[in-house]
Amino acid sequence: MDLRVRFAETDQMGVAHHAAYVVWLEAARVEWLRDLGLSYRALEDQGVSLAVTGLEVRYRAALRFDDRVRVEVRLEEARSRRVRFAYRLVRVDDGVRCAEATSVHVPTDRAGAATRLPAAWLEAIRPQVTATA
Amino acid sequence: MDLRVRFAETDQMGVAHHAAYVVWLEAARVEWLRDLGLSYRALEDQGVSLAVTGLEVRYRAALRFDDRVRVEVRLEEARSRRVRFAYRLVRVDDGVRCAEATSVHVPTDRAGAATRLPAAWLEAIRPQVTATA
Amino acid sequence: MDLRVRFAETDQMGVAHHAAYVVWLEAARVEWLRDLGLSYRALEDQGVSLAVTGLEVRYRAALRFDDRVRVEVRLEEARSRRVRFAYRLVRVDDGVRCAEATSVHVPTDRAGAATRLPAAWLEAIRPQVTATA
Amino acid sequence: MDLRVRFAETDQMGVAHHAAYVVWLEAARVEWLRDLGLSYRALEDQGVSLAVTGLEVRYRAALRFDDRVRVEVRLEEARSRRVRFAYRLVRVDDGVRCAEATSVHVPTDRAGAATRLPAAWLEAIRPQVTATA
Repeated sequence: MDLRVRFAETDQMGVAHHAAYVVWLEAARVEWLRDLGLSYRALEDQGVSLAVTGLEVRYRAALRFDDRVRVEVRLEEARSRRVRFAYRLVRVDDGVRCAEATSVHVPTDRAGAATRLPAAWLEAIRPQVTATA
Repeated sequence: MDLRVRFAETDQMGVAHHAAYVVWLEAARVEWLRDLGLSYRALEDQGVSLAVTGLEVRYRAALRFDDRVRVEVRLEEARSRRVRFAYRLVRVDDGVRCAEATSVHVPTDRAGAATRLPAAWLEAIRPQVTATA
Repeated sequence: MDLRVRFAETDQMGVAHHAAYVVWLEAARVEWLRDLGLSYRALEDQGVSLAVTGLEVRYRAALRFDDRVRVEVRLEEARSRRVRFAYRLVRVDDGVRCAEATSVHVPTDRAGAATRLPAAWLEAIRPQVTATA
Repeated sequence: MDLRVRFAETDQMGVAHHAAYVVWLEAARVEWLRDLGLSYRALEDQGVSLAVTGLEVRYRAALRFDDRVRVEVRLEEARSRRVRFAYRLVRVDDGVRCAEATSVHVPTDRAGAATRLPAAWLEAIRPQVTATA
């Protein structure tokens, strides 16, 4: 997924604020699922969320306002009760790798309790799992 | 309500981003209600929200990271189907008025349809209405 | 400019939070300028910002997570010391007009003092001014 | 540092969005430094930033709108070219530990290049280093 750094996402250091990356990871996850034919909105409408339980980001190079960023998504683990994604953020114009990240998710129901990922989702994403880079 | 400008709320102009003010108005509204003994969280738990239908902000002086800001709240209108607040943002350290704002709200139910403000709320807030400054 | 409502932009009412719209207006402004061949990033790099001095939003219909939103931008006023934009937010899938907005801007220098819009910018945007709808 | 979960920080799952925690960590860091007599704003004004190069968050229990959150800050490492903080987020009303986090920082100059932490800062924070919990 490609996006542009928004002005509102910059801070007074003149670069994208580190919390903005976390929002981009999520947006890229949603697009990655859509590319597989899976609607995260539909999952939420069924009452299942992929709650984030862990997050790691390594920031390597700053991104500036209006930079185009490619967020590459990779699925590292897909179980009915735990899913893990890995990400690479690349600045489109020069190919510089700006950040890497992982996020761990637990399927939860409307009450926030752990639940199982619907079988159809698990079947759809499991073949996408790739070994850690 | 007093708050500090967070670093994440700044932008590359070196000042608080104009969208951050909108979040502060909301936080100040919640505190203003709490001071009256009204919990906005409890209202939401009952299924009633004060959906924002109109917003106006006039920005007069920039706020910087770590500035202390006082958000003064005033109720301008309180009807069962429409509530309007006015705000003044003052920088605490020098008393400079940095912004003014108004917000208009319509009580809505969980489905997002217009509803009436609970009678107890209306009774509690109505005496607070003051004429436009 | 078209965008998708991000999950992070929703709130517990299940719709896009009203402050997110303010960020979208800005992103759409930047794209509108880019379509004219004007880089807002380059303007900032020259030391000139279009500081927001006024903002009005009228919210008409809620937007949900993953909704596609078209932000239509129109220039209402273009003077060397004051620029005003108007906006319409339309949900792409059903054409519903979800919000309207205006923003007023004053060119400022790095110190935040009012300045003049560079002549090249004024010439480029002035022919785009359209009467209030 | 104590704060309240803002409405704008919730998402449609009805809890605080995971990116909001990252903003809270930063706010708590700034207060922790202030308690030591160090102004992060003054450091920035001198041209030195504590750029975030690494971030880890483990989310344990959800936080809701209006919950009071205590962010406990601990310094784990303080060198002239690298600083690491650890955090615990505790819900004030019931003492539940809701999240833990660490952040790694590199002092950078205005151009974003790595630099040394001013000696006065290093002397002030070094005695605060505590072993990993």
